[in-house]
Amino acid sequence: MHADHVWTHARLATMRPDLPGLGIVEDGVIAAHNGRIIFAGPASDAPAFTVTQSTDLQGRWVTPGLIDCHTHLVHAGDRAHEFELRLQGATYEEIARAGGGIVSTMRATRAATLDTLICQALPRLDALLAEGVTTVEVKSGYGLTLADEVKMLRAARALADHRPVDVATTFLGAHAVPPEYAEDHDAYIDLVCRTMIPHVAQHKLADAVDGFCEGIGFSLAQVRRVFHAAKANGLALKLHAEQLSNLNGAALAAQCGALSADHLEHVDEPAVRAMAQSSTVAVMLPGAYYFTRDTKLPPIDLFRTHGVPMAVATDCNPGTAPLTSLLLSLNMAATLFRMSVEECLLGATRVAAKALGRQADIGTLEAGKQCDLAIWDIERPAELVYRMGFNPLHARIHRGI
Amino acid sequence: MHADHVWTHARLATMRPDLPGLGIVEDGVIAAHNGRIIFAGPASDAPAFTVTQSTDLQGRWVTPGLIDCHTHLVHAGDRAHEFELRLQGATYEEIARAGGGIVSTMRATRAATLDTLICQALPRLDALLAEGVTTVEVKSGYGLTLADEVKMLRAARALADHRPVDVATTFLGAHAVPPEYAEDHDAYIDLVCRTMIPHVAQHKLADAVDGFCEGIGFSLAQVRRVFHAAKANGLALKLHAEQLSNLNGAALAAQCGALSADHLEHVDEPAVRAMAQSSTVAVMLPGAYYFTRDTKLPPIDLFRTHGVPMAVATDCNPGTAPLTSLLLSLNMAATLFRMSVEECLLGATRVAAKALGRQADIGTLEAGKQCDLAIWDIERPAELVYRMGFNPLHARIHRGI
Ligand SMILES: [Zn+2]
Ligand SMILES: [Zn+2]
Repeated sequence: MHADHVWTHARLATMRPDLPGLGIVEDGVIAAHNGRIIFAGPASDAPAFTVTQSTDLQGRWVTPGLIDCHTHLVHAGDRAHEFELRLQGATYEEIARAGGGIVSTMRATRAATLDTLICQALPRLDALLAEGVTTVEVKSGYGLTLADEVKMLRAARALADHRPVDVATTFLGAHAVPPEYAEDHDAYIDLVCRTMIPHVAQHKLADAVDGFCEGIGFSLAQVRRVFHAAKANGLALKLHAEQLSNLNGAALAAQCGALSADHLEHVDEPAVRAMAQSSTVAVMLPGAYYFTRDTKLPPIDLFRTHGVPMAVATDCNPGTAPLTSLLLSLNMAATLFRMSVEECLLGATRVAAKALGRQADIGTLEAGKQCDLAIWDIERPAELVYRMGFNPLHARIHRGI
Repeated sequence: MHADHVWTHARLATMRPDLPGLGIVEDGVIAAHNGRIIFAGPASDAPAFTVTQSTDLQGRWVTPGLIDCHTHLVHAGDRAHEFELRLQGATYEEIARAGGGIVSTMRATRAATLDTLICQALPRLDALLAEGVTTVEVKSGYGLTLADEVKMLRAARALADHRPVDVATTFLGAHAVPPEYAEDHDAYIDLVCRTMIPHVAQHKLADAVDGFCEGIGFSLAQVRRVFHAAKANGLALKLHAEQLSNLNGAALAAQCGALSADHLEHVDEPAVRAMAQSSTVAVMLPGAYYFTRDTKLPPIDLFRTHGVPMAVATDCNPGTAPLTSLLLSLNMAATLFRMSVEECLLGATRVAAKALGRQADIGTLEAGKQCDLAIWDIERPAELVYRMGFNPLHARIHRGI
């Protein structure tokens, strides 16, 4: 059997669903060929390989490459000044007058060229990659015109040309009502459903469609329209749901077979049950919870009781989570949400893959999967969750390289 | 006038006490000679220099090198497994039986050689340096025998031989009662005061003496004895005070002229007034507050009202703050404690220098100070506090190099 690269003397956290916990293999071997894993398991079970390259990992831990399944990584400008004003006690009105809020990011993003968007996103992406991320989801939603949403999605796709990473793109036209439609929100939803979604689907710019179901975002009825348009155009569904209040967005997402419902601080038990039935992933975003000083915890115990898989992501966005560390997100999920070490690590690998509908390709160390690896200088996997502001990555492999 | 190095086109946050806020100079120049700043100010005021090396900073921001004024950076082992067990609901007793708690770090530290302590500390130190830290304080306190405390302090001092950084060492023999003295805490304080403090002073191993004044640590009377021994041996004072309860440690620290009182969640107004009178710095450790899920905020408004200077530090320790990012500490100080951007940045520079008694040498960009610089790829200083898990350091200069 020929392998391009074999890694030996590895401790594997395979994340395999047929093994308990993290699917640990103590004396493990991984072999890759043509960018795919052809073997991952105990050295004692490994076939004989003819190999091009061999690496002795000297007992280092290997996890699947990490997956950040919810980000707004592509945007122009930042909101540091708004942050500063808030700390000085400025009101929302004063901040709006000073040019803050989501509209400020929209304006900056509209004004930016495609190249500017890419250039500004790359340092943020690099921070994620430095921690072993090999797949990142990126949403649009700061353009809010066809041209600007397309520009954001193209910038997101282009990131994969500049760095060794898989990028999953999500169209989030229904992120906010742009000022032009302040008097007629439904007319904006018309534009999203009739023009934007068909366009991004036709040009294969997005892998999924997302929305912001909230009093300050869009109503359940408006999200339902967006979901129908997405399904009619063959796109997967995701939803920002129940972050600030309970509009039953998660239940709708589950009914429509969405890949994930995200945030979920205010979700109720019937919706959690519906999510379990539809295998909709609960994406936890503790960085936003922390940064906005939220006090309403998502119902982790309900997710556990009903068997809803939990992912953890950065939410990386300029307004409520200027966060570019998935490891720190895991620490926050543990510290603030009391998720276990296993739940956190599965949430950034196998479950995150499921939240992107990519569980056949990534998220575990198994033959047939893409060979995306994170190799760590740690003594035990818990260190990845326990430490804050420390990066123990030894090496990162994307598609076998 | 000759300079070894001149940096031009810099935006300076000088942190000068005679200027408001961060002491900003928009078109600034810094000149260094023999490791000291010989000029820092507006380009229009700069004298003519003959220079060995000149760097055009193209508008980048420069702050003083950051100062982490409270760490337990030198220790052996970690407590990741304890963290994992806690998340699974283990009780303190179960964790103690599983070998957790401060005693586990003490055992690992006692068992470690000097070289092991240095080797294990270096990656943590490197994480701090990567963010522009040029001075770090390191405490002993996991040895709790003369030989092991000395070993910790020697390891701390040795860090400065391995990396370009200033290390301030603090003797924290009164950190915990070692098991050998479980039945006679005062006898351990005898050892600290009569043997350990004179020894570390005589061998110049420590710059200051610290204690843990708490129900689970040492009483006010015991700390008073430690302070008297420290003063008698010419050492400066610091104190872990009022973290979990109010034992009037901060008031004692102020009366004794301590450089700082640290934590202070439970401090009261008379003690804050005493701190103001003695210019004792309040060292804020939001990483420990976050990691231990504390809910009692330190009285930031009282510190402001009475003019007590506030520093911010990582507390880097394996039990309650496995944190190696001073920038993240600043974000936590802002997000959790509502300290302003200016307070945070002064707290990691000028005020942190004062907490170490080194305000004559470091902490501001002024002629005569050590040339310790952090040069940043940012548009405004607020970005250093606003972002989480992002490192915008462009370059770091320690003693002019
Ligand atoms: Zn989001
Ligand atoms: Zn401490």
